[in-house]
Amino acid sequence: MVFKLNNQLLSKIATGNGHGEDSPYFDGWKAYDEDPYHPTKNPKGVIQMGLAENQLCFDLIQEWLKNNPKASICTPEGAEEFRDIAIFQDYHGLPEFRNAVAKFMAKGRGNRVTFDPDRIVMSGGATGAHEMVAFCLADPGEAFLVPTPYYPGFDRDLRWRTGVQLIPVECESSNQFKVTRKALEDAYDTAQLDNIRVKGLLITNPSNPLGTILDRETLKSIVSFVNEKNIHLVCDEIYAATVFSQPDFVSISEIIEEEVECNLDLIHIVYSLSKDMGFPGFRVGIIYSYNDAVVSCARKMSSFGLVSSQTQHLIASMLSDDEFVEKFIMQNKKRLATRYSSFTNGLAQVGIKCLKTSNAGLFVWMDLRRLLKEQTVEGEIALWRVIINNVKLNVSPGSSFRCTEPGWFRVCFANMDDQTMEVALSRIKTFILKSKEAKMSVKKLCWQGSLKLSFSSRIYDEIISPHSPIPHSPLVRART
Amino acid sequence: MVFKLNNQLLSKIATGNGHGEDSPYFDGWKAYDEDPYHPTKNPKGVIQMGLAENQLCFDLIQEWLKNNPKASICTPEGAEEFRDIAIFQDYHGLPEFRNAVAKFMAKGRGNRVTFDPDRIVMSGGATGAHEMVAFCLADPGEAFLVPTPYYPGFDRDLRWRTGVQLIPVECESSNQFKVTRKALEDAYDTAQLDNIRVKGLLITNPSNPLGTILDRETLKSIVSFVNEKNIHLVCDEIYAATVFSQPDFVSISEIIEEEVECNLDLIHIVYSLSKDMGFPGFRVGIIYSYNDAVVSCARKMSSFGLVSSQTQHLIASMLSDDEFVEKFIMQNKKRLATRYSSFTNGLAQVGIKCLKTSNAGLFVWMDLRRLLKEQTVEGEIALWRVIINNVKLNVSPGSSFRCTEPGWFRVCFANMDDQTMEVALSRIKTFILKSKEAKMSVKKLCWQGSLKLSFSSRIYDEIISPHSPIPHSPLVRART
Repeated sequence: MVFKLNNQLLSKIATGNGHGEDSPYFDGWKAYDEDPYHPTKNPKGVIQMGLAENQLCFDLIQEWLKNNPKASICTPEGAEEFRDIAIFQDYHGLPEFRNAVAKFMAKGRGNRVTFDPDRIVMSGGATGAHEMVAFCLADPGEAFLVPTPYYPGFDRDLRWRTGVQLIPVECESSNQFKVTRKALEDAYDTAQLDNIRVKGLLITNPSNPLGTILDRETLKSIVSFVNEKNIHLVCDEIYAATVFSQPDFVSISEIIEEEVECNLDLIHIVYSLSKDMGFPGFRVGIIYSYNDAVVSCARKMSSFGLVSSQTQHLIASMLSDDEFVEKFIMQNKKRLATRYSSFTNGLAQVGIKCLKTSNAGLFVWMDLRRLLKEQTVEGEIALWRVIINNVKLNVSPGSSFRCTEPGWFRVCFANMDDQTMEVALSRIKTFILKSKEAKMSVKKLCWQGSLKLSFSSRIYDEIISPHSPIPHSPLVRART
Repeated sequence: MVFKLNNQLLSKIATGNGHGEDSPYFDGWKAYDEDPYHPTKNPKGVIQMGLAENQLCFDLIQEWLKNNPKASICTPEGAEEFRDIAIFQDYHGLPEFRNAVAKFMAKGRGNRVTFDPDRIVMSGGATGAHEMVAFCLADPGEAFLVPTPYYPGFDRDLRWRTGVQLIPVECESSNQFKVTRKALEDAYDTAQLDNIRVKGLLITNPSNPLGTILDRETLKSIVSFVNEKNIHLVCDEIYAATVFSQPDFVSISEIIEEEVECNLDLIHIVYSLSKDMGFPGFRVGIIYSYNDAVVSCARKMSSFGLVSSQTQHLIASMLSDDEFVEKFIMQNKKRLATRYSSFTNGLAQVGIKCLKTSNAGLFVWMDLRRLLKEQTVEGEIALWRVIINNVKLNVSPGSSFRCTEPGWFRVCFANMDDQTMEVALSRIKTFILKSKEAKMSVKKLCWQGSLKLSFSSRIYDEIISPHSPIPHSPLVRART
């Protein structure tokens, strides 16, 4: 006999919805998973453009692996080390791993700064890193400010198990979504009014989803802000090496070495190899803190999500190869630039613009405001349903990034080959042209006065409405 | 200018001492790290017997690796799969990984039960698994009962970031530390009196540190207990395949398939490949829950500590090889039995007994009660200091496992080669013989009446006291 379990036998975390999966960002993946595009087997399937993956340089990595069999403990050349690596579980990590990561972080920032291997703390991806930082810095109920639009996973990573809150700092397209001092002060004041203690500010640089970088002046202003308020600054720099055109990336590590007055104990960087190297499956997350107490505490916490020693060993070998790393970083930027350019040029051919200041990341921030039937979140979601159900592209609506202006969409472009990108572009073009034709028919009909049809006519609806709603679904992937 | 950081800028977790590193269990590692034994380079160094590592079968694994180059994504034979594996981050895990682990779990339990791959949830080692279970099942302030002696890491894993409490269930040597119904009821009643809500019972089977297994009747009684109280049962079975002599291991998964009346939603198993396979560095932890809601919630939580896809891929290949797995499990038991027997026989030569019911694990539970100057925790720690400073063996005192009887020590025997074990044994023998001589000298002197010397004479003290105290240290390893 099996009794029915009373829900309260589980924790509030388990029975609540703090995980934040209730979002089109995650629902889009479900739509893709149910009907994934394949050039020959399923050419009408959904193309995945909701996944910020970097697949453009795997040929370089495979070549390196073939030339470096000793790098792995699973080759005849490397197997002698299997035992020592398999049993290694010191939470400091392999010294050669920390050294290699510190060097790679410097290279990815143009070698204008250096990183101390003793401050490198491992974590289970950036996901684990963000949670660890939140556990170290804030108590339940306390808050971090986060400029919008921001990565939807932050609601899970920083809040779910920690009880920490996120307070949006509202940024706008009128100034290319810059993080202004005024926006920061407004958010801080709102928190004060609500009696919420602000513990820090979380910025992503380069930004996901904007693909923009923060300029030197903005970074200095941010450093001043956190110092004046005596709150922490967490800088997510997981896209540091994806900056593919001018201006150059400026890391927070450069700013604090300059003349800025700054309490270094407030500064923490989150890094990862998921985007810059394209290894999200390896779960290599890094916390680099300038605060000794945070380094020490986070290191203890890393026991809950250490990087597999097998992976540490491989990464140590690969990232210690200077020649390879330099070639990889250069090629990566070059290929991202080419892809960005061909994708945005394609969109421009049908009049679609993207945020023009983007020069980093694995995505564009696409402006479809003119296509909305109404300038609301509902209008944005309606358009998103059309794109996913009819155009068969999984893109992510701006509202899932807490963007305050409806009509923006994040579109990932580096997780596919050239042919797939062309298919995606041609689907978008067809959709736009059909929409225009439909609009024109509607206008023509209206002008002729033969029918009373509004902008939301049936003809337009056939194109702009989903065949079927996407059901809210349990999050099927841990993807970012 | 750098300001001094006000401590309250960090969280209570970061500034508190909930991590539980303040224990001889961890201090012993520090002593080893500072002066590690090496047969030729440092023959007088500390021998590490505080680490439950299984190093006896790596030759079998290395042989398998050489014969299976396609198992790795870092060999010329396997590199074609590098891309697909490196980008894989579905939090369900690779289907072939879950299938292989489910099969291995069954094999490690004599194939008397099967496991559903869809209930296999990944975690960052058993460390991550235990924390995830606690997050799923209990709110801050709520408690789990845990029979003593228990693994010191539980205080970190289940309590530190969750705010959950652990309440000891006191077990005693008079009945070989059995988990009796009375002991369970007593602990439960104590919690009730203290107004603490008990959410579950955590058992380790086989036991760390006892090396014993729970018999069928005890398991049935435990299942009845949790069902009557309507609380969860978390079974840590990470040593399942180390049972090296009769009687056979009985998993909780067998009990609940029998006639016992049981709400399956209450039953959860924690597993890992760190002990049975000897891969602690790979961080392969598993939660196997019979409760759908826990499977679903834990899977979402696993995002904070997924197993590296590189490691999943290797494990999937290795554990799918039935012939290899069967040979490995058999050889592992055989070699553990041999090592156990030679180690305990060596101890017996100088009159040292170990818990006689042990037939599993990577350690013995050594009875040094007769050597204590006083039957207190202080007496135990004094003896421990002598063992670590003079005898130069890092063993772990029972008090660090919350054993209520002073004088027991956990001594690991599977993390070294035969020669090192012989050195350790000869050090113990020398120590015991010297102690006996010293005692006899003391007695002789007392009998002659020439000096007023008590049992705590200077001569005895020279042997039984440390040269220098071991300082409390920050935990230097994440080891178990």
